[in-house]
Amino acid sequence: MNSVSPTHADQLRNLLSPDRVLTELEDILPYGFDGTAVIKARPGAVVFPLTSLEVAACVKWARAAEIPVVTRGSGTGLSGGSVPLAGCLVICLTHMDRILEVDEKNLTLRAQSGVITKEIDDAAAKVGLFYPPDPGSMKISTIGGNVAENSGGLRGLKYGVTRDYVMGIEVVLPDGTLTWLGNKCVKDVAGYSMKDLFVGSEGTLGIITEVILKLLPRPQARKTMLALYDRMESAAETISAIIAAKIIPCTLEFLDRVTVQCVEDYAKIGLPTDVEAVVLMETDGHPVVVEEEAAQMMALARANGARAVTAAADEAEGARLASARRSAFSALARMRPTTILEDVTVPRTELAHMVGFIRTVADRHQLQVGTFGHLGDGNLHPSFLTDERDAEEMHRVEVALEEIVDETLRLGGTVTGEHGVGLAKKAFVKRQLGEGSYELMRSIKRALDPQGLLNPGKIFDL
Amino acid sequence: MNSVSPTHADQLRNLLSPDRVLTELEDILPYGFDGTAVIKARPGAVVFPLTSLEVAACVKWARAAEIPVVTRGSGTGLSGGSVPLAGCLVICLTHMDRILEVDEKNLTLRAQSGVITKEIDDAAAKVGLFYPPDPGSMKISTIGGNVAENSGGLRGLKYGVTRDYVMGIEVVLPDGTLTWLGNKCVKDVAGYSMKDLFVGSEGTLGIITEVILKLLPRPQARKTMLALYDRMESAAETISAIIAAKIIPCTLEFLDRVTVQCVEDYAKIGLPTDVEAVVLMETDGHPVVVEEEAAQMMALARANGARAVTAAADEAEGARLASARRSAFSALARMRPTTILEDVTVPRTELAHMVGFIRTVADRHQLQVGTFGHLGDGNLHPSFLTDERDAEEMHRVEVALEEIVDETLRLGGTVTGEHGVGLAKKAFVKRQLGEGSYELMRSIKRALDPQGLLNPGKIFDL
Repeated sequence: MNSVSPTHADQLRNLLSPDRVLTELEDILPYGFDGTAVIKARPGAVVFPLTSLEVAACVKWARAAEIPVVTRGSGTGLSGGSVPLAGCLVICLTHMDRILEVDEKNLTLRAQSGVITKEIDDAAAKVGLFYPPDPGSMKISTIGGNVAENSGGLRGLKYGVTRDYVMGIEVVLPDGTLTWLGNKCVKDVAGYSMKDLFVGSEGTLGIITEVILKLLPRPQARKTMLALYDRMESAAETISAIIAAKIIPCTLEFLDRVTVQCVEDYAKIGLPTDVEAVVLMETDGHPVVVEEEAAQMMALARANGARAVTAAADEAEGARLASARRSAFSALARMRPTTILEDVTVPRTELAHMVGFIRTVADRHQLQVGTFGHLGDGNLHPSFLTDERDAEEMHRVEVALEEIVDETLRLGGTVTGEHGVGLAKKAFVKRQLGEGSYELMRSIKRALDPQGLLNPGKIFDL
Repeated sequence: MNSVSPTHADQLRNLLSPDRVLTELEDILPYGFDGTAVIKARPGAVVFPLTSLEVAACVKWARAAEIPVVTRGSGTGLSGGSVPLAGCLVICLTHMDRILEVDEKNLTLRAQSGVITKEIDDAAAKVGLFYPPDPGSMKISTIGGNVAENSGGLRGLKYGVTRDYVMGIEVVLPDGTLTWLGNKCVKDVAGYSMKDLFVGSEGTLGIITEVILKLLPRPQARKTMLALYDRMESAAETISAIIAAKIIPCTLEFLDRVTVQCVEDYAKIGLPTDVEAVVLMETDGHPVVVEEEAAQMMALARANGARAVTAAADEAEGARLASARRSAFSALARMRPTTILEDVTVPRTELAHMVGFIRTVADRHQLQVGTFGHLGDGNLHPSFLTDERDAEEMHRVEVALEEIVDETLRLGGTVTGEHGVGLAKKAFVKRQLGEGSYELMRSIKRALDPQGLLNPGKIFDL
């Protein structure tokens, strides 16, 4: 594989237009990293196609020139999936930002990959419809990145993740072929579900240029509640009790003490800073059901040891409470120069144990760790507040991470619930999947991208 | 590739036990076909493993002996996916019929592949939980077959299809490796979603030996309604009006006049036989919501031209009404020696047009066709009542099918919504997918099963 040379850059300017090809150091620096700590590299060129055909042309060109390609949207990824290779071609899809159709009768929406996630839901809301996946970064992340990473969000418990809303994708394959996988039919079993292979493949198998998404009717009502706990175990017991009561709320999120303190310091929401856990609960749907479920959930929280339980009076107050959770990462990230955000996920029943385990590990290695995440999904984000320039502390972080991963796998969990593998989780994936399933995945990459053109070195090495 | 010889049969008897290896003509005949008309072949041997390791041993043996393998459960498939190759080894999983775990706290169920679909839901119901996918054959089909075919059902509109409930599968790969894909975590993005590649791959990539399924809380209430129409268009308009009212019922099924006449003749439910369409509507969930939605749906049916709308007084009457739809295929199949059941699916908005088109084609070719299906999903089952011994009539059927497929694809539809490709839809798949996507699929088969050992000739030729 080659690096982008000045001659290559000229060829790219001819292929697109000069103003959509960046090669100067100060221009390309912002494309050298994503939302992941520590990892960065300098690409050879960054291009901004406007159409799927332009993307295909870039891939064909890169293939001929033997230049590796890394695709990106807004670069909010948290596993290094869109961090470039040194000297590579970065295809940035943020200019492909048009919503092409909202089909009210078929409950679908078609958009280019560069559309901001929140704009998808806003467009749906205008006609009373709903795009449920709401990753933390939804105000800046692009839908193409969400699909490539199979992003999660705060409503996963009830509504699932991005994959559950992808009906079709247009992709550019590693040989430059442009093809649709999937369609507007709500049922389709004509051959392998190739779209499902591409969802979550982190840009290693093809470049997603357009998507057809499934929409739902917008819930008529929503109620947001906050429960405060002196013991983490009580929070976990509340979750179990809610599930046992056959309630599937849209949101069951939590923040531990360290995170609450940082959030309060940052956003001044009025949370008490002496609690062990804050749980954000949300139910949505028919007004009668929402009222009933909310009352049950609050009663269950109290019965399971919540110190206090409050319900938001209205949508605005609900949004304010939810902002405590939404600002968790930003609040933690202010504390130290480097924030390493983990994403381990365990079966729901193992949650309380896992949260306790993380705290023990953090204490043993004298590390600052704030944990928050999706309690209902078993998806935890222990965040290591550290400093990448301190080699000794970074070593302790590494050891602690190893211990957390070991325990996660022992409990039948996964090293990444919603952030993807990218570069950050590569070392752990084989251990999780085992030889058979790991080699299966690699054989697919080799079959579809024998040259190793697209996002090389992400998820696994070939 | 070889055929099973007497020596091979002896080897298989040593590998398993003599009573679980069939080779005599009268024993193996029932394994020569599935639920699909016309297609049959005589296998060389049929084996009944009891464990995943026995399945793996059979695959390793077949690989060494170069004998093609076709896997089957109850053989209810409707696209020939489990019809054997002449002389091949049939691995029949019906003896692997244990439900291994119902995990109430994690809302999951683990079972061997040979468990009958309805038993899965029955086991869930015992603890107040729910396995929604309900293919027409659920009383006899196996869960492994459902997963391999990504079966649909009558509740697809609200609850989705089999894929939406598969969290993990244990598979035997073409080289005999036994591996798990997926797990009990509700979120997992550690690498490609290999389980999603295997769901719906029709036994061509691996043999599914165990499954982990997602369960939901069981809906508290259900209401079944029947609407009778003098015009098919009115039925379709009712569906559009229901969706426009932001209601997603669990079931919106229909039967056309030919089907209603056959069903009434067969099951004596008391349906008037002079209607153009009968629509079965069902809503489930919270009792208040069910009452409200049912009232709205009945009003919308009347407003859109239903001649009569009735609601079942209770669950038992609801089940009786639903049986009209559930018995449609059996009722039609009694009429003539051969029933060719199609499975075309179009975007919901194209439904009324498609139903009319099918009738026009049937009339033009003087064919008896009864159409029924999933109105809410755009999934139609035009059923050709014919006689495979009449070459001239079969030719007309073929021409009619071609015309229906052409129109389906013109409307952005799929040649199979829930029955799979198997042998029956092979000729149409490439036309639907286009070169790029079709070749992508074949390259995956070649990468995973280079020898072409598993279910050769299904979905596509290599």
